[in-house]
Amino acid sequence: MSVTAPLGWTASGVRAGTKPSGALDLALIVSDRTASVAGAFTTNKVVGAPIVVSKPRVASGETRAVLVSSGIANVATGEAGIEDAEEMIQLAAKELELDPAHVLVSATGVIGHRIPVERIRNALSGAVSALSRAGGEAAAQAILTTDAGPKTGIRTLTIDGTTVTIGAMAKGAGMIAPRMEPHATLLAFVTTDGQASAASLRSALGRALEPSFNSISVDGCMSTSDTVLVMANGAAGVSVADRPEFDEALTSLLQELAYAMVRDGEGASRVIRTRVTGAPDESTARAASREVGTSLLVRCAVAGGDPNWGRIAQALGQTPDLPLDPSRVSLEICGVQVAVNGAHTGREKDAAAAMSGASEVPITVDLGLGDASWEFLTSDLTTEYVTFNAEYTT
Amino acid sequence: MSVTAPLGWTASGVRAGTKPSGALDLALIVSDRTASVAGAFTTNKVVGAPIVVSKPRVASGETRAVLVSSGIANVATGEAGIEDAEEMIQLAAKELELDPAHVLVSATGVIGHRIPVERIRNALSGAVSALSRAGGEAAAQAILTTDAGPKTGIRTLTIDGTTVTIGAMAKGAGMIAPRMEPHATLLAFVTTDGQASAASLRSALGRALEPSFNSISVDGCMSTSDTVLVMANGAAGVSVADRPEFDEALTSLLQELAYAMVRDGEGASRVIRTRVTGAPDESTARAASREVGTSLLVRCAVAGGDPNWGRIAQALGQTPDLPLDPSRVSLEICGVQVAVNGAHTGREKDAAAAMSGASEVPITVDLGLGDASWEFLTSDLTTEYVTFNAEYTT
Repeated sequence: MSVTAPLGWTASGVRAGTKPSGALDLALIVSDRTASVAGAFTTNKVVGAPIVVSKPRVASGETRAVLVSSGIANVATGEAGIEDAEEMIQLAAKELELDPAHVLVSATGVIGHRIPVERIRNALSGAVSALSRAGGEAAAQAILTTDAGPKTGIRTLTIDGTTVTIGAMAKGAGMIAPRMEPHATLLAFVTTDGQASAASLRSALGRALEPSFNSISVDGCMSTSDTVLVMANGAAGVSVADRPEFDEALTSLLQELAYAMVRDGEGASRVIRTRVTGAPDESTARAASREVGTSLLVRCAVAGGDPNWGRIAQALGQTPDLPLDPSRVSLEICGVQVAVNGAHTGREKDAAAAMSGASEVPITVDLGLGDASWEFLTSDLTTEYVTFNAEYTT
Repeated sequence: MSVTAPLGWTASGVRAGTKPSGALDLALIVSDRTASVAGAFTTNKVVGAPIVVSKPRVASGETRAVLVSSGIANVATGEAGIEDAEEMIQLAAKELELDPAHVLVSATGVIGHRIPVERIRNALSGAVSALSRAGGEAAAQAILTTDAGPKTGIRTLTIDGTTVTIGAMAKGAGMIAPRMEPHATLLAFVTTDGQASAASLRSALGRALEPSFNSISVDGCMSTSDTVLVMANGAAGVSVADRPEFDEALTSLLQELAYAMVRDGEGASRVIRTRVTGAPDESTARAASREVGTSLLVRCAVAGGDPNWGRIAQALGQTPDLPLDPSRVSLEICGVQVAVNGAHTGREKDAAAAMSGASEVPITVDLGLGDASWEFLTSDLTTEYVTFNAEYTT
């Protein structure tokens, strides 16, 4: 059901003709009442025009609708691009009979090209008439670019005897190395029928982002369009503000989507789950898990099923500000201990056997320095990734 | 002639049996008199045992010989590895009848395995008897691992009417993203018959490293064994200390070797020469040129002959601390202007034509912010790189 699982939300996905393939490329998400909104956006200094025009609207804390276009990102298009994005908002607001201040726009796709606003205009009345609770699936299809398939998820929780639902849809699958603010090329749209102020949604999103989207990378390239929106319309009639159950559900939902994004990373054959434990503090654990998980040599080794712990040690050693003591480092690959206290266990064959055919490769590093830990998800590096990105224009 | 081009230097390259392939794998470089020495080593916190034992010897400022073993890096081998490295020095010193304090050792190859010292011991007398001025070529062969071929260079200069020669040999070709101190998996050995104190050699090396080895990357992975040694034995009878001609010759020699390393980067089909101009300061120019040149998406695009300036803009935008103003950025690919002041020129077809068949792809970015510039060399990312590193154990 994706974003239309919660009460009061409808969506649609239609063909505007932005994608040359003719696939669904325009999604609309609408709440039947004013919703609180919190957002996180790329920290890349080159940002898409849709982010430029939507950011102040998100900051206002209130919204009713999001229009998402895929195929062309509307990035590096100058003033004309900003006018295009603003025009899309005006067009959608008119068609939906809403205040343009309450309409957001988002886009993903090729950089450096203008979005064909005329096609969006022509498609909008169809998108509005298609709005329905069943439309969440089509909307989830319409935001995809290089993704193999849609990424959706829902959570339900009971607060004071009332059922609250959270629904979400997201897209990957390349230019993925989000570092968002409040610390977000991924697009992810989360809806709920719970009630919450924009401020409390912002803090919940901030907490949920760190162990989810901000702990994944496909290719180390931070997109110019990363956007995550969480919108709460209160249709369930119960407040979720500052409820740990809501935090937990939101975090686990974003983690599910983040995993799906890495799983479906361009060319990915396996997910690498790098867990660093025994770190002096969380930020060091995170830096080390990122350094290992994003190492090209580690990612190639995982693609090849090679339990190459030397490359893991090399990556640890280049982690900035990590007070590494190689003699304290222990390493497991797919549950097989390959090094203990810096020394070789000679169990590479066991590790290779465990890796063989595994769709997920856990790498666990114990630094032996403290109690902090972090987990970072990446995809392996395959020849398919390279072929794809040598031939596809993003 | 490599390292034996200068007066007073001999070398040899023999088979010890460290490489399973049976290729040359043990090199020896010897000066007929005490030479001043300056070195630069990896800043990875996991460092090879050869670096641990050689670093204090380099710090002493004087040396006579370097023993280089390829096939096994002797990294992550604990105390036993350090004893192995020290034993190699003792064995070479004995065979050469030198003070062990004047013998250096270096190694490159697989991480996490012990070096077969017995084989080195058995090969040493052969290596010593093979020492000659013609031996520079065999030595340059013997230090290679995944390299397609040897990397050597020489420079001659005239100081006060006397000819001074600088010779060098180096190896790549993967785990290359050196950040050395004084600000080196590359190994590079430079010899000269000029005279210089260790202190003046250190400053000359420091200056020469920045625009050469510290401005290249093959895969973003900083090796645990990076080592550059510059040794001056004074056999030409003239001082090169603080001579700008020497600085210039040394810099240009290291740049030639750095270029060769990128050219021969694992799987590389093209060299990407990223030049950032108009930067507020050199360190920003360097960070931006590194970010663009090492971007996986840019490297894939270059491999595919795609003048994808959107990916260049994306990479610029994630450069830390760069006060980027997208509206001031102009971009050239292979001499074709693809963007001016942030706007699309529509000349992608010309750029694609210029890229077609080019073995070197210059990307020039003018930030429009100041007068500083930097150039960073990287190799493109090909399916061969991935296949190679999924199958080869480093």
